[in-house]
Amino acid sequence: MSAAARARRLDEHAQIVVLEQGEYISFANCGLPYYLSGEIAERDALLLHTPATLAAALNLDVRTGHRVVSIDRDARHVRVQAADGAYDLAYDALLLAPGAVAIRPPIAGLDHPAVHALRTVPDVDGLTAALAPLLAAPGAAPGAATREPRAVVVGAGFIGLEAVEALVARGLHVQLVELADHVLPPLDPELAPLLAAELAAHGVEVHLGVAARAIASDAAGGVTVTLSDGAVLGADVVVVNVGVRPASDLAREAGLDLGPGGAIRVDGDQRTSDPHIWAVGDAAESVLDVTGVRLAVPLAGPANRQGRRAADSMCGHRTTRQRPVLATAIVRVFGLTAATTGASQAALRRAGIEHEVVHLHPGHHAGYYPGAEQLHLVASFAPDGSLLGAQAVGRAGVDKRIDVLATALRAGMTADDLAELELAYSPPYGSAKDPINMLGFVAQNALDGQMPQWQAWNLDTVRATTLVLDVRSRQEYAAGHLDEALNIPHLELRDRLAEVSAAADGREISVHCASGVRSYLATAILRAKGFEARNLSGGWQTLTALPTP
Amino acid sequence: MSAAARARRLDEHAQIVVLEQGEYISFANCGLPYYLSGEIAERDALLLHTPATLAAALNLDVRTGHRVVSIDRDARHVRVQAADGAYDLAYDALLLAPGAVAIRPPIAGLDHPAVHALRTVPDVDGLTAALAPLLAAPGAAPGAATREPRAVVVGAGFIGLEAVEALVARGLHVQLVELADHVLPPLDPELAPLLAAELAAHGVEVHLGVAARAIASDAAGGVTVTLSDGAVLGADVVVVNVGVRPASDLAREAGLDLGPGGAIRVDGDQRTSDPHIWAVGDAAESVLDVTGVRLAVPLAGPANRQGRRAADSMCGHRTTRQRPVLATAIVRVFGLTAATTGASQAALRRAGIEHEVVHLHPGHHAGYYPGAEQLHLVASFAPDGSLLGAQAVGRAGVDKRIDVLATALRAGMTADDLAELELAYSPPYGSAKDPINMLGFVAQNALDGQMPQWQAWNLDTVRATTLVLDVRSRQEYAAGHLDEALNIPHLELRDRLAEVSAAADGREISVHCASGVRSYLATAILRAKGFEARNLSGGWQTLTALPTP
Repeated sequence: MSAAARARRLDEHAQIVVLEQGEYISFANCGLPYYLSGEIAERDALLLHTPATLAAALNLDVRTGHRVVSIDRDARHVRVQAADGAYDLAYDALLLAPGAVAIRPPIAGLDHPAVHALRTVPDVDGLTAALAPLLAAPGAAPGAATREPRAVVVGAGFIGLEAVEALVARGLHVQLVELADHVLPPLDPELAPLLAAELAAHGVEVHLGVAARAIASDAAGGVTVTLSDGAVLGADVVVVNVGVRPASDLAREAGLDLGPGGAIRVDGDQRTSDPHIWAVGDAAESVLDVTGVRLAVPLAGPANRQGRRAADSMCGHRTTRQRPVLATAIVRVFGLTAATTGASQAALRRAGIEHEVVHLHPGHHAGYYPGAEQLHLVASFAPDGSLLGAQAVGRAGVDKRIDVLATALRAGMTADDLAELELAYSPPYGSAKDPINMLGFVAQNALDGQMPQWQAWNLDTVRATTLVLDVRSRQEYAAGHLDEALNIPHLELRDRLAEVSAAADGREISVHCASGVRSYLATAILRAKGFEARNLSGGWQTLTALPTP
Repeated sequence: MSAAARARRLDEHAQIVVLEQGEYISFANCGLPYYLSGEIAERDALLLHTPATLAAALNLDVRTGHRVVSIDRDARHVRVQAADGAYDLAYDALLLAPGAVAIRPPIAGLDHPAVHALRTVPDVDGLTAALAPLLAAPGAAPGAATREPRAVVVGAGFIGLEAVEALVARGLHVQLVELADHVLPPLDPELAPLLAAELAAHGVEVHLGVAARAIASDAAGGVTVTLSDGAVLGADVVVVNVGVRPASDLAREAGLDLGPGGAIRVDGDQRTSDPHIWAVGDAAESVLDVTGVRLAVPLAGPANRQGRRAADSMCGHRTTRQRPVLATAIVRVFGLTAATTGASQAALRRAGIEHEVVHLHPGHHAGYYPGAEQLHLVASFAPDGSLLGAQAVGRAGVDKRIDVLATALRAGMTADDLAELELAYSPPYGSAKDPINMLGFVAQNALDGQMPQWQAWNLDTVRATTLVLDVRSRQEYAAGHLDEALNIPHLELRDRLAEVSAAADGREISVHCASGVRSYLATAILRAKGFEARNLSGGWQTLTALPTP
């Protein structure tokens, strides 16, 4: 629809026909979980446009219930199947925006009526209808079955987490099943436990590293979900969201070039291998920034701009060619926000891209002003200082920092650039040294050798080969520490260097505190005194977030 | 202090002496208004460090109550005056961070004890002490004088507005006096009325375009403030904040180069004209981005980074040279936030820089998700599309957009770049087409001739020479419109072009709606049909925000 609207604004005289096989066009699919939860009260709020409003405002000929079954590229017409028959429709320029189809995981009983998706208006209508009897008259008749309504959600990606939140909001007990070893698989593993803890705090049971294998009716009118580890979960509804694949069958059958992942290959103007056909959205291939990986990126923002760009190209208007995609994404999980932009650490490893990782846990605004919430930031930098990717989790200020970092990434900024960014500061909004500036400072120090880091995931090697120096207070140390760590509070370090020297006995020193600030000061002192010392990135907070090796 | 701390982290062996003429170091001056308001409950929260904590953590020799009275550059020592006598202190590297001094406006009675500033801890202590008796036991004895305590604030800049908010929070009736014709003079005039309305909604009386001339005791134990227009305001306390000037007397007396505004001239490493002396903060000169104007920029963020940079240079460490300053700034005014980055329209006009201005009034997140607050955005672009400056006012999401725009500005981004930014979208956080993307789209359309704009400040010319076409609904038109405007709701336009043609009678057509969206569609139709038509930037909302010509 963004392409059709832009095309009309560029060309008042064009005949623009929109063919949609389903009943709804231009619906707010990102809003479906919030309608399910009840936050969006009116179903009509999801329906941003109707064929009638689009005809009136943009003179578009929108035909719902019309399915394109084939493309005759030579004759330049599409074959359309409608309720009242089939017809051919000629085109000068054809845009393919068929979207994606849900991946069907290998689960026996996946077609059980208790199983739902959450991708379309009919999906949410079906789920809402299924919830209604479960939630009606709770505890009405004493002695009646008053079992708490239960849901199993399969897949802990963005939509899966939004589904969990919505179902909890509606009063269901929710169990979440995820094949990966942490929730929200695109997130770095040291941030995901924050989300898992938030889920647990809201009564959600999380099952990680397991697959759903079978769904079947039980005797009590519900279903059982059997997991790959043998566990059996009871449920009244099951929501399955394990990802999507490009809906590119029509394009494939028409002989258009596809990428290895099945997405329609396009150039920077969204044009396919046929010069009269363009493709956009979840079905079209994008190039990821940083790694150069080519795949379909099912995100609303890029899809919207692709539509605009395709229309520019179809109408012969100046286009802004598609840039590599950052895949910036964000999700709310109860009181937390998690967001990511650019390459994750896992993506960098897969692509073989050398990178230095920086972890920070700053307040989201000045600490002396009440209400500062802790942010958890992770960012990766190339050896030349270029930002490669960043992620954040926290209760406030996450979206702002990720948007700034997405802008910095698009601009090719380095750690030096982040250090010098001039962001808006007043106590309710930020800090004179914003967390983004701090990311730059810490990355500068790590990359220019001023302050070498050690990383939590190297803990085994660190314990085996170096002296671990814990510079937290005695109280913090007493509340939990590494067995072999030497504890010298950072303010005492200048006077106790001899103890360090004796304990190190020639070994390198691996310093840590709670978040990395005091240990930074301590490491600077040690290095100035001739010790080989490194500072733990993210401190005890990052160390304890990772699963114990 | 940021320089001293960084220097210690870079050099464990250096002797670092900090000389401060006052009693406090490293206090949270940006927090003073929020201590005055009571939001920051503990005075100690303002005192981020003490000489003792800095000695312990960073081995700094901090001497408060020690005033540097002169610099002997040849001998490389400073003359220090302390309570117990004067002494010379030798240096290898000297950093000047004397800050700014308040400008004393020409007001008779400025030294009256009821007059306060809000720049230092003693200032806020004095003001707090002055408020205490005014606020004690309100309405205690029936029949006693129960006059509402009253304040006059002179100067409606950032700190002046924060002072107003704090005094209202404490229960005072506040009158605000500003010499300029709108509050927050750095803000563009079409945004400032939003702040004025918010002030009025909180009972603040705003006096614009007038100066305070005299302050004198009245018979009732208060004071009178006489304005340049003859008005006399009653008050119990007067807070004067009309700006600052660089505290560069010491540098001038030492023969260091100063800029025309009196700030200490420095190079990109913060080094002065003496290679052994550096200068930072409110006393040092910066170069403004976009306009190239050189002046002191009294902001905490740049000052912090200048300190770090100066320390890097003093210690022979790799420095990140100072970049032109964007002067990003933000202020909370009750429920509103106002923020700015880069050049204002007034600054661009003064510098003779050609620019196209774009106004938007989008929601701060998806409209279909509840709670979307309207943002008011203004941005200026060069003819080549480069972003030159941006400002925003609204109840939510302002700080995020200005931080993204500050990052974009620093990166030299264009309208095309803003259109293609990939910002985090989920309904609670933003829109698939974020307001920043929309700024890019609208600027692209205006700059590439697709959608020429007209501006509210050209209304007189527009009314005299063109047909004004109001494409809002009949109801909106009835609620207020330009007398000569032809009203054709945008959905009717395609069928009523003959009326437009007759009314225009060969003249250009100046289209508007409420915010610029519907009029964009209408203007596209008109232009496609051969009319010369332009779209009002920001629509009726921007038009009515400006004072009537």
